[in-house]
Amino acid sequence: MNFITFTEEQLRSFTYSVFKQMGCTDAHANLATDVLIRSDLRGIDSHGVARLSGYVRLWEKQRINATPNIKVVHETPTTATVDGDGGLGLVVAPFAMQIAMQKAKQYGSGWVAVKNSNHFGIAGYHALLAVEQDMIGMSMTNASPLVAPTYANERLLGTNPICYAFPAGQHPPVVVDMATAAAANGKLEIAQRANTAIPDGWVQDANGQQSTNPNELKNGGSLLPLGSDKAHGSHKGYGLGATVDILSAVLSGANYGPWVPPFVAFLEPPTDPVGEGIGHFLGAMRVDGFRPITDFKNHLDNWIERFKGAATVDPDQKVIIPGEPEHAFEQARKLEGIPLIDVVVHDLNELAAKLGIAKLH
Amino acid sequence: MNFITFTEEQLRSFTYSVFKQMGCTDAHANLATDVLIRSDLRGIDSHGVARLSGYVRLWEKQRINATPNIKVVHETPTTATVDGDGGLGLVVAPFAMQIAMQKAKQYGSGWVAVKNSNHFGIAGYHALLAVEQDMIGMSMTNASPLVAPTYANERLLGTNPICYAFPAGQHPPVVVDMATAAAANGKLEIAQRANTAIPDGWVQDANGQQSTNPNELKNGGSLLPLGSDKAHGSHKGYGLGATVDILSAVLSGANYGPWVPPFVAFLEPPTDPVGEGIGHFLGAMRVDGFRPITDFKNHLDNWIERFKGAATVDPDQKVIIPGEPEHAFEQARKLEGIPLIDVVVHDLNELAAKLGIAKLH
Repeated sequence: MNFITFTEEQLRSFTYSVFKQMGCTDAHANLATDVLIRSDLRGIDSHGVARLSGYVRLWEKQRINATPNIKVVHETPTTATVDGDGGLGLVVAPFAMQIAMQKAKQYGSGWVAVKNSNHFGIAGYHALLAVEQDMIGMSMTNASPLVAPTYANERLLGTNPICYAFPAGQHPPVVVDMATAAAANGKLEIAQRANTAIPDGWVQDANGQQSTNPNELKNGGSLLPLGSDKAHGSHKGYGLGATVDILSAVLSGANYGPWVPPFVAFLEPPTDPVGEGIGHFLGAMRVDGFRPITDFKNHLDNWIERFKGAATVDPDQKVIIPGEPEHAFEQARKLEGIPLIDVVVHDLNELAAKLGIAKLH
Repeated sequence: MNFITFTEEQLRSFTYSVFKQMGCTDAHANLATDVLIRSDLRGIDSHGVARLSGYVRLWEKQRINATPNIKVVHETPTTATVDGDGGLGLVVAPFAMQIAMQKAKQYGSGWVAVKNSNHFGIAGYHALLAVEQDMIGMSMTNASPLVAPTYANERLLGTNPICYAFPAGQHPPVVVDMATAAAANGKLEIAQRANTAIPDGWVQDANGQQSTNPNELKNGGSLLPLGSDKAHGSHKGYGLGATVDILSAVLSGANYGPWVPPFVAFLEPPTDPVGEGIGHFLGAMRVDGFRPITDFKNHLDNWIERFKGAATVDPDQKVIIPGEPEHAFEQARKLEGIPLIDVVVHDLNELAAKLGIAKLH
């Protein structure tokens, strides 16, 4: 496996061209590009440009609308439901987050449920929009069913990520951005490529037995919720995944549970949908709705310093503040560029050929 | 271990008398009683009357104020911070939840951070107050430090529970009410009494090594976050516990992390507090702020039925809907009474003798 490093600008320009070829407006192409590139910058390689050809395949199958009319279909002063009109989640979710932030600016908090959307990239991107305004940001989304609830032998939930982001003072924001499964699909793919076993507790096979084979998902198996089994709290991971599903889809009017349309274009969506597209849930709260922002930031800095300075089992492995590794990646990759593995570069160049745009190199 | 069964009314009357002897007003004594008895009714025996003598001991040490002046100290239309004046969390948290619900009624949502409080009982009680008004309820609290973040060899977080509750139609509400540790302390106490080993992944010993000894917490060990170890996602359980700590305490002005005062009266609070008391965070959102309530309830019923009917690994073990077992307990115990183990009855009768009230039997 070889890496080829590109500058942020090279990847931005390429990604923008792809979205333009799909027919996106300039504003949408720029926004969708920003979401994907920020994922690569932050070291979350599974959610960045590596997914570009997946979005294009969904668009080719007319399951993504490149020119959506995104609109609010229901609202109160601090709540709203947005219809994404089948658009890229990469543009629908930031639209919804802007509404949440406007409401928060006026009333203290704002909460937006979204239906009829698609994959929204990294949850952290959207929550961090609020942090820039000294707000607490929250974002979550449901996703294609891959996870079996505790006791189930069926995939009923997605890896349904949830993110909370908090503005700090001297330190980078605290960003808790996590799938509610024990391990997300990307980790299985790494083991598949390396042909190695995975830990017990990540997947079960088609018979519902725990397995260390990273290929079980392809053979009818399921991912397991955070907690892995009942004794270790998998009912909690299942409960969190359920919370994300209900807030994102039962509340908005999107598809939920096993009805969520698959991200991969080669699988068809269920023929008996219970809602429209996939769903998100986004929120923002003004910190100064609770206490002065400087007090909050000073105390969050103190919290961060106490946790970073904690005694550890291995003196060389400090406690990690949520969001700190991603911030470090972002600082480094802005200077040093973004490494892509050769199979991703190959895939992107095939995409370029298909769409008639300049190759990456 | 023997059980003695009491009627709900017997336990209510006894518990009310205890709070009255502490000097609580009628209203506060009734409210605190309701929180504890509902925990016993719902089968969460660790958080009901079994804790009464613990609250009394904190009051004896003047760490609980039986006659608090609970007040809003900061607010916007949809956010507020409440100062609990050192009162019982059992009365402070419902006070805060009422404010959240009033704001939600007027503006769609309401969010209240609480400082200077104490243990608030089961998180589910407070979130369910919102469900009765066709709102989505949310509640969380920080707690005495018992959990070591991933890589740490120090107790820096409490078991920091988080609860989301949703109103259904034909079915009981969906109530996700979970500690963010792999296993809460109550499960260790059961193993201690039975003198049995606990599963790997619940605790680490004083050297930071995983252990199956249920007594490790007494020997300087720590609980582990949900996920148990890094490979199984303990950084996610740690991230959730951190989120609860920041929303409950950094946002409100309560103590956070290792500064949270202990629930047990024999341990003194830190002498260098960073805030006041412990903290909670409560919220309510009107369902009809997003879509008509009947649509939501119909789809949540459909969600529940699909999950309950899922294929399972063991045909005799169906998928459990979060909150369903507690609802079944509540129905049964209202009719059949509440069983208490003999050591709890003994403890309550000693408490009665000390306070000069009638014994339980």
